[in-house]
Amino acid sequence: MTDTPGSAQLTLIPLGGLGEIGRNMMALSCGGDIVVIDTGLMFPEQEMLGVDLVIPDIAWLQERVANIRGIVLTHGHEDHIGALPYVLPRLPVPVYGTALTLGFLRNKLREHGLIETTELHTVRPGDSRSFGCFDVEWVHATHSIPAACALVVRTPVGVIVHSGDFKIDSTPVQGEPPDLARLARIGDEGVLLLLSDSTNAEQEGTTPSERTVGEGLAPIFAAAQGRILMATFASNISRLQQAINAAQACGRRCFIVGRSMLKNIKVAEELGYLHVPPGMFVNPKEHERLPDDELAILCTGAQGEPLSALVRIAAGEHRMVSLREADTVIISANPIPGNEESVHRTINNLYRRGARVFNSSRHGVHASGHASREELKLLLTLTRPRYFIPVHGEYRHLALHAALARSVGIPAERVLAIDNGTVIAIDEHGVRVTGERVRTGYVYVDGLSIEEAGDVVFRDRQQLAQDGVILVVLTVERSSGAVVAGPDLVSRGFVADDADALFDEAREHVLSLVSRLTPDAGYNAWQGAIHEGLSRFLYKKTKRRPLILPLVTEV
Amino acid sequence: MTDTPGSAQLTLIPLGGLGEIGRNMMALSCGGDIVVIDTGLMFPEQEMLGVDLVIPDIAWLQERVANIRGIVLTHGHEDHIGALPYVLPRLPVPVYGTALTLGFLRNKLREHGLIETTELHTVRPGDSRSFGCFDVEWVHATHSIPAACALVVRTPVGVIVHSGDFKIDSTPVQGEPPDLARLARIGDEGVLLLLSDSTNAEQEGTTPSERTVGEGLAPIFAAAQGRILMATFASNISRLQQAINAAQACGRRCFIVGRSMLKNIKVAEELGYLHVPPGMFVNPKEHERLPDDELAILCTGAQGEPLSALVRIAAGEHRMVSLREADTVIISANPIPGNEESVHRTINNLYRRGARVFNSSRHGVHASGHASREELKLLLTLTRPRYFIPVHGEYRHLALHAALARSVGIPAERVLAIDNGTVIAIDEHGVRVTGERVRTGYVYVDGLSIEEAGDVVFRDRQQLAQDGVILVVLTVERSSGAVVAGPDLVSRGFVADDADALFDEAREHVLSLVSRLTPDAGYNAWQGAIHEGLSRFLYKKTKRRPLILPLVTEV
Repeated sequence: MTDTPGSAQLTLIPLGGLGEIGRNMMALSCGGDIVVIDTGLMFPEQEMLGVDLVIPDIAWLQERVANIRGIVLTHGHEDHIGALPYVLPRLPVPVYGTALTLGFLRNKLREHGLIETTELHTVRPGDSRSFGCFDVEWVHATHSIPAACALVVRTPVGVIVHSGDFKIDSTPVQGEPPDLARLARIGDEGVLLLLSDSTNAEQEGTTPSERTVGEGLAPIFAAAQGRILMATFASNISRLQQAINAAQACGRRCFIVGRSMLKNIKVAEELGYLHVPPGMFVNPKEHERLPDDELAILCTGAQGEPLSALVRIAAGEHRMVSLREADTVIISANPIPGNEESVHRTINNLYRRGARVFNSSRHGVHASGHASREELKLLLTLTRPRYFIPVHGEYRHLALHAALARSVGIPAERVLAIDNGTVIAIDEHGVRVTGERVRTGYVYVDGLSIEEAGDVVFRDRQQLAQDGVILVVLTVERSSGAVVAGPDLVSRGFVADDADALFDEAREHVLSLVSRLTPDAGYNAWQGAIHEGLSRFLYKKTKRRPLILPLVTEV
Repeated sequence: MTDTPGSAQLTLIPLGGLGEIGRNMMALSCGGDIVVIDTGLMFPEQEMLGVDLVIPDIAWLQERVANIRGIVLTHGHEDHIGALPYVLPRLPVPVYGTALTLGFLRNKLREHGLIETTELHTVRPGDSRSFGCFDVEWVHATHSIPAACALVVRTPVGVIVHSGDFKIDSTPVQGEPPDLARLARIGDEGVLLLLSDSTNAEQEGTTPSERTVGEGLAPIFAAAQGRILMATFASNISRLQQAINAAQACGRRCFIVGRSMLKNIKVAEELGYLHVPPGMFVNPKEHERLPDDELAILCTGAQGEPLSALVRIAAGEHRMVSLREADTVIISANPIPGNEESVHRTINNLYRRGARVFNSSRHGVHASGHASREELKLLLTLTRPRYFIPVHGEYRHLALHAALARSVGIPAERVLAIDNGTVIAIDEHGVRVTGERVRTGYVYVDGLSIEEAGDVVFRDRQQLAQDGVILVVLTVERSSGAVVAGPDLVSRGFVADDADALFDEAREHVLSLVSRLTPDAGYNAWQGAIHEGLSRFLYKKTKRRPLILPLVTEV
């Protein structure tokens, strides 16, 4: 990596969010200055067994921590700010974002005991801040959270525009439409490189305005006989505002269930992003006394998260809310890929309790926060960048967004569909892939620790999950090599027809395996022989491969 | 259960497929006669760790095996015939189905060594067969497999219509449109009970004809420059026919990859359900020599199944087929819920290899085989049943289908949205839920054995998958209770920051735990103390709960 101070050579390194959904993070380096854009987390995929969260690998940044001038945030979603509590202790640098973004972040930092030690700087859309050789300007955007911004980064070699997460919502519920005029002006001045959100690059046309959700909610609220229960993302303040408005319009008061929703509502209200009429919210006691047709319950769990409010309510296991026959349930979200099974199970449970269910797939109660193909084309044609790198998405999204950029006239050789860790050099000659790579492996947050749980751990967990574990306990006399106790077999998570007979046979087999060893074969040979021989024996008998753990004690 | 021979009292028991997708199976009993409709399997859900397949519980049928007059099949999909190889050894009864259905079944029975011992009877649409007090008539239907039928069951108390899996395809690729005229005539004669497919009860409108897929494929085939690779279900013979037709139209020959597809094509061709021009199929050698623009590869793996052809090709790991830059890939299927992640990963890999990808979500290259809401209403109004039971679907599908039936005028009290195992009595007074239940738990096929893997096994596997396993090995002197060797800790699948120090501390903790026990406490007390104490210790330190297996050896 060459970061010669003073040279007009930039390095751009995507550390997360390219070729995957979530944990968005990118580093820009020039001379002795580094600025980091977003620091998100990602939820584990199916085969990352036992993992709570996944964050970016920051080894490259840790080696250069003295050069980092700041972390700049586009908006307050988990996949953009969620890794900060894990990263800030290792990278104690100032963080910049809008008031709501920092409001959500403060809640997290407080929980992790980092609020005192973190330097936070509030910016407004239109503001610029200098970070050594970089100037960063926040430009008002629209997304499924208020106070989201695109970034315009002025560098010694040209202007870089980073879209953040966005859609082009001309009728947002909260605040102004996106500041396309500003982006157009910047386009006029000349954009060297555009980085743009690819999440919805598969979606034709344009994404519906957030306001359409309010239009979808109103008749459902108006027609409901019993109670109304609506689940949505705790950070979608505009969605919550529309639910509150719909409740007010039909004379209902709101009961909020779910810790993250309560906290976000408090922050958003304090900062003026949410307007709640006096007396609109009821406490648990009041909620019990309200007639059914005067109550709307707003709750978490729209993704079917195991311990969330909606999931507990649907299962009849919530300590405050139990569903009744005539209740109406609205799930104002689409299942994120991987969550379909749990969302569907929740909906099945709701129907079993006799509720009427409105969910995104069949009713207009959700709108995405990400730009569809026509909006992506609009941003490309407004900014007219010389170079384009699609960001935020799995590889198919990046590939489709790249093809879209070529279709609006950006020459193919200036469109770079790249992966995390690809080092990009930017200088007066243009933007190019250097061929160098930075390590960007998954870093797992699992229980209390942050760890690079290696492939071996997942392979073991996978095997344990599939076929369980069998221990073989054996005591041998060191001098003679004779088996003096055991072998005993203990299993967990392993099933077989007639397991008793199988284990009797397996014990015999272990004895015959070790009888072939010489007394001085040693511990490893004993272990190896039992491991391999018993694995083979059990696979032949059962077509299963439990994890075999031989424990040989020498006396 | 009262099955008094001669009385006009019927019992209907759904043994699978209600409140779940797959393993469709239903029993009808009258006097001394039982007839079984379909015997399907289901693929395991995410939390059924280590399970290959799930089949219905047939205990109720096993107790009455002498009374079973036959198993009647609606069509040849896995979720309707797939459990037969596991069930037939326990229920050796005759099986009835159309030629193609039995053709697919024969392949399975051959693999399981059951072909000699199974009595198979071929029927044609329009045929009737008697099963004691039941007469069953097969009525031609359209679905995503040829030779699919609805069933009309004449009983002493009235006519029962079972839709099978169906959509109303007026322009099928293979054979005639569904025999709606026959169903209408039966409706005129009076239907006591309709059982109808609920799979697509969430889908508005009508399902597109299979023929539309051919219209979608033709321009993609015509425009392709390099090779064409198309993945679809191995049993969707009409889809394969259309791919073959599209290949022929642009001068390409077909190379078939995937064992199940080869076998199904052979059966379908022999039985006249698939028409392949001479010389159309090439063998592996010929395929290598063909120019790219004269080749179409038809393969399995449209669901992203781990070892399937498409997944291996996308990962660059297939021994015969490797993708090139200009190749076109068509995935002619929708991901079944739960398979999204692996399908998406496959698509990402295909884009990485530079292929152009057409998949169902964005292109007209797939059509469902199940009736949407307008078609469901049509079947209800054609048959005008006195009673209605929605079948085939998770509970939300059944609930929505039930609401649809009420909306077309079936009185609410005659619409029964029920679960597996609900015993239904049918007599001159009508159809009613008896309140009795038959056991219908999951029966798991796992490796070579069929087993009711209990909740404990899954709980253990879940814990193993989440946090791994820790063994504590300890030798104590029986007389004194003194620890003479160990404690040693062995872990698999467990991660922690600074594991060495943690394990040192854990060993000390185990010693202090056992020091509190009296020498004569006994094996169970030692085990219990270590298990409980160490679990608590590790949870406090790591917020993880590995499975703890204490192994105390007494000397």
